[in-house]
Amino acid sequence: MELFNGFSKLSTEEKILAISKLFDNQKEIFQYLKSFHHSDKDVQELFEGFSENTISNFHMPFSVAPNFLINGKNYMVPMVIEESSVVAAASKSAKFWFNKGGFQTEIVSTEKIGQVHFLWHDSVDLLKFKFSELKNELIEDTNSITENMRKRGGGILNIELKDFTDQEPGMMQIYCTFDTRDSMGANFINSCLEQFAATFKNWYSRQAEFSGHGLDIILCILSNLTPNCRVKCWVETDVKNFDGIVKDIRGEDFVERFALGVRVAEVDPHRAVTHNKGVFNGVDAVVLATGNDFRAVEACGHAYASRSGKYSPLTKVDLKDDHFKFTLDLPISIGVVGGLTKLHPLVKFSLKMLGNPTATELMGIAAAVGLANNFSAVKSLVTTGIQKGHMKMHLINIMNQLEVPKEYRDRIIEYFKTHKVSVSEVRKVCDELKYTGKIKGSVKI
Amino acid sequence: MELFNGFSKLSTEEKILAISKLFDNQKEIFQYLKSFHHSDKDVQELFEGFSENTISNFHMPFSVAPNFLINGKNYMVPMVIEESSVVAAASKSAKFWFNKGGFQTEIVSTEKIGQVHFLWHDSVDLLKFKFSELKNELIEDTNSITENMRKRGGGILNIELKDFTDQEPGMMQIYCTFDTRDSMGANFINSCLEQFAATFKNWYSRQAEFSGHGLDIILCILSNLTPNCRVKCWVETDVKNFDGIVKDIRGEDFVERFALGVRVAEVDPHRAVTHNKGVFNGVDAVVLATGNDFRAVEACGHAYASRSGKYSPLTKVDLKDDHFKFTLDLPISIGVVGGLTKLHPLVKFSLKMLGNPTATELMGIAAAVGLANNFSAVKSLVTTGIQKGHMKMHLINIMNQLEVPKEYRDRIIEYFKTHKVSVSEVRKVCDELKYTGKIKGSVKI
Repeated sequence: MELFNGFSKLSTEEKILAISKLFDNQKEIFQYLKSFHHSDKDVQELFEGFSENTISNFHMPFSVAPNFLINGKNYMVPMVIEESSVVAAASKSAKFWFNKGGFQTEIVSTEKIGQVHFLWHDSVDLLKFKFSELKNELIEDTNSITENMRKRGGGILNIELKDFTDQEPGMMQIYCTFDTRDSMGANFINSCLEQFAATFKNWYSRQAEFSGHGLDIILCILSNLTPNCRVKCWVETDVKNFDGIVKDIRGEDFVERFALGVRVAEVDPHRAVTHNKGVFNGVDAVVLATGNDFRAVEACGHAYASRSGKYSPLTKVDLKDDHFKFTLDLPISIGVVGGLTKLHPLVKFSLKMLGNPTATELMGIAAAVGLANNFSAVKSLVTTGIQKGHMKMHLINIMNQLEVPKEYRDRIIEYFKTHKVSVSEVRKVCDELKYTGKIKGSVKI
Repeated sequence: MELFNGFSKLSTEEKILAISKLFDNQKEIFQYLKSFHHSDKDVQELFEGFSENTISNFHMPFSVAPNFLINGKNYMVPMVIEESSVVAAASKSAKFWFNKGGFQTEIVSTEKIGQVHFLWHDSVDLLKFKFSELKNELIEDTNSITENMRKRGGGILNIELKDFTDQEPGMMQIYCTFDTRDSMGANFINSCLEQFAATFKNWYSRQAEFSGHGLDIILCILSNLTPNCRVKCWVETDVKNFDGIVKDIRGEDFVERFALGVRVAEVDPHRAVTHNKGVFNGVDAVVLATGNDFRAVEACGHAYASRSGKYSPLTKVDLKDDHFKFTLDLPISIGVVGGLTKLHPLVKFSLKMLGNPTATELMGIAAAVGLANNFSAVKSLVTTGIQKGHMKMHLINIMNQLEVPKEYRDRIIEYFKTHKVSVSEVRKVCDELKYTGKIKGSVKI
């Protein structure tokens, strides 16, 4: 059990070799890891530069969900997700809503947030009194950082002083809101905040009225909780348009069951979490495909879902006068410039396929896919149940896992149209078919 | 603006062609999308089978974080993440803790949850009275589904009746807990629940004491909120061992600042969200690398973080008698069998590199990486700030974006050791170096 020193300093080739050496079949492992590399060396280096200690590329399926009509514009939406059924569900939902006006979106606001947290052991009143003076210096000293953002119409929106001294002795913060235009803005905001901290210290040292040793900057960072960087997305139609959406069901019965399905999530957080998870299946698939940060999107969305003190669903149903409206209210901070957006080859392609959208347009697209997935999920849950569709997809994966040759597959799929899918059942059927072969060429380790 | 009919029914090749046709440079796009395919046709088909409407593979960097000492065992941890600095931060943290006992973990429980939500318009008291009878039938009727799970020591743990009629007329649920051993268990649980629903209906139809038309099953599904499928992970050491962790800082001062950094997250949800986001940077990278579902993990973790009614940090600091302990309390439902775990080639490799861990072992590993990332983030934030390290990584990405040739890069990196990194600044320096070339072979669309 020794410390592995200097791994990060090895070349990629050396790293792969070092990892391979941990295994008996060193040569196979080396080739195995390399087999996922891109054939173009420069492109491969690009991927390796995104992170550290990279040894291979993890392939996620890159999919397309067609027929997303959003604000009257027709999109083929790129989705990256490893879970089966998600892209199929989004596509099915998009197609259903296509001739019913599609998805509408409204940007509530695009406000981002950054904070300088500090301890204050000096006069709070005096700081509050003099804050507008400090504020001017904060803005002035960040002029060179904000210059380009201001040219694009963004920059600092507002700077406030916040007082948490009732919860912790001396705890206060400079709370700043930003407009970062088409970028997610993390680097921009953090750069501003670190300058704020320096300016604050400098300003404080020049104030004769204060004690001079009452300021302790704790930390500066953007907040991923951006409840005001938010989009509303909805679909709506007359109840009668749901007639027959599921065999032999009337529109009015369907929407009532659908509303009840959402109501369960309002009543029980155990259901709300799963409900929202389904929203994020769609949202994250677009977030990933467009090179954005799904951890930030998830953290914000779920914290927002808990804002009332009770974890609640992000979608809601309005039923009035035989009219059905289904709305997603989603805070989401994503960008179309900066980060990986111009670097990752398939992110570039995703944005191109979406017609190079603005950040707000992309917020709407991600929300539409999230709403589409939630619509499909709730629809299935309150009618046929999800397992039927899910297991059909799963069957293909099980057959891949058991490496069932193509010539057997149709018969197996036929069999499971009337039987329950499970790994053990598929195995049994394979035995009965006396299958012993393997798919040739399948990668082994 | 026409509906694209039948996209899903096209072959992969036809799908790529159909997408290519949307662009002027059709041939280039076709080749571009194909260039990310795996060279082995069968392996490529495997990736395409994970999702639907797949046209290419989205490459995520596959990295290794060495030196993770967890419960006395030394792991090289696979991480899949597109954000720079995360793997470096995890590795640095792992190395720091390696000779201080490493990470300890404790599995609190592995309980999964499934629910059958229904409306009940009959006697609640009588249902409660007769529930143990129904319960026996629920267990009996799922015997064939649970058989293999029981052989592995898992299965149904408990079945309860829950009453939400105070919140919504008639709303009740069958609340069932499961032990799904080494699998995440979604398919297993959902299959059990759908059988529960059928059994419940059948049982009800046979009860003469009831009205016979008072049961309406709303929906059946697992819950992603699994607060009892949880791991605690911690690091601890004497305060003096932090002496010099950052230049010229004493251990006792460092831990005090560190604790204050975490305290900010306890006081302010705006900081807590970002704090936890940093935990999930590490957790999700392991979740992705091992073929698990990060949406489920995120939804559960953030909802758990909001359980008190105030969104709070998932890590905490204990400081006592010059001893520092830093603990992550994380509900996380992941598996090492089922789903993609045996299907995705690099997931298979990830699990192999981790010594084919059990699900509980993997819970500990994911938690350790999350804690490691949080330790690094808070450490940087309360000392040097995060931008310095972040921008160094970011510089490489910017140079890639601007396609700066290798021969210029060392000079540029040198320059930015004493200057602030931004796209515009890098562009300026490039201009000064009179750089006009491009990296050869870089993919263009």
